[in-house]
Amino acid sequence: MTKPLSIAFLLFPNVTQLDLTGPAQVLSRLGNARLDLVWKTLDPVSTDAGFSILPTATFADVPYADILCVPGGFGINGVIADDEAMAWVQTVGAEATWVTSVCTGSLILGAAGLLDGYRAGCHWAQRDMLTLFNAIPVDARTVVDRNRVTGGGVTAGIDFALTLTAMIRGEAHARAVQLGLEYDPAPPFDSGSPAKAGPEIVAAYQRRMQSIVPTRDDDLRALAKLRGYG
Amino acid sequence: MTKPLSIAFLLFPNVTQLDLTGPAQVLSRLGNARLDLVWKTLDPVSTDAGFSILPTATFADVPYADILCVPGGFGINGVIADDEAMAWVQTVGAEATWVTSVCTGSLILGAAGLLDGYRAGCHWAQRDMLTLFNAIPVDARTVVDRNRVTGGGVTAGIDFALTLTAMIRGEAHARAVQLGLEYDPAPPFDSGSPAKAGPEIVAAYQRRMQSIVPTRDDDLRALAKLRGYG
Repeated sequence: MTKPLSIAFLLFPNVTQLDLTGPAQVLSRLGNARLDLVWKTLDPVSTDAGFSILPTATFADVPYADILCVPGGFGINGVIADDEAMAWVQTVGAEATWVTSVCTGSLILGAAGLLDGYRAGCHWAQRDMLTLFNAIPVDARTVVDRNRVTGGGVTAGIDFALTLTAMIRGEAHARAVQLGLEYDPAPPFDSGSPAKAGPEIVAAYQRRMQSIVPTRDDDLRALAKLRGYG
Repeated sequence: MTKPLSIAFLLFPNVTQLDLTGPAQVLSRLGNARLDLVWKTLDPVSTDAGFSILPTATFADVPYADILCVPGGFGINGVIADDEAMAWVQTVGAEATWVTSVCTGSLILGAAGLLDGYRAGCHWAQRDMLTLFNAIPVDARTVVDRNRVTGGGVTAGIDFALTLTAMIRGEAHARAVQLGLEYDPAPPFDSGSPAKAGPEIVAAYQRRMQSIVPTRDDDLRALAKLRGYG
């Protein structure tokens, strides 16, 4: 018999939906587990990809979870500015067995005071912002420091969740989940990190971010102060 | 200027949500494109992972799309049994520039008569079922045959969608999307295909499928007859 587990993902407006849906697919196969997507109300929450996902529970419904997982995306500043959402992250994060994130979700954990002194991963483009919250940025697909398990950008959530699955249910279980999801990746190009993509594609990406979210990092610095950092 | 594109994903009850959400994340970054998730009504559609996704449009709203993409999952037999859903797949598939699928979504395309004589991919566990529909099963992450572009199981949808992105918008665009999604996969184990997982894990997986969906393949054979095959 496996231990029953509760998994709570924070779902928020303008989440990068694959940050959530990738690891949710993997963790939905932990066995003997309940998976919730949690937000203020049960109304649909818009994602970055043009469609909406329904929360399964509200903050009030989920005061505790064995696994807290916070995804990232353009919506993270809105979460960090939101007292109700941050109070929930802090409450659940304080008691959870595993405190986890994918992509820029680690910046939410950081702002909630949950990564102070911890090594953590993040999307490459905002990884250095972890230092705002006294976290130590690490360039890796999955970073484990005590009970904090944090993933790199977006698709790293799948690698992260398989690692977490193995830590909780053992390697044989994780390998079976990997087989079921046919996770034998073969990207048609080798362009998944700044070093591999090369300076031209990185520069184009940075220009695009500058045009879409010009104040993203400055806003986050201001929010860090609001949350008692910096 | 890039050409404006319409992308229509079939969303259906008990879809393997990552079959849809993986490629939707990639294709949402095609640029100058509208992405719809299409089903009978706009009511929430349940997925295999314990949460629901909202359609953005109904069948009546989307009589044409440049890209049709059909995901897979345990719900495929329900779709193949459904005249309204199959009529929509046939109508849109007949005119689409690209007729595509991920995982067992290719069996829906097959039942709709859209893979007759085509090479196609599928989840490894049901790949051979493609022959029911006169399609030629291929063991690959992405299979391109004329304008049919079909992916392997679940996570192959990300590789598939990057390949399709390059075909439509060019390799530089696809590489930039790959960088943005930090798609530099590093699975913690090497167990993503039957050959790599080995006979014990494969046997355990098959036993589990037998207990969850014991009549899946027999039901599909009966449905193939209903659709004029076999």
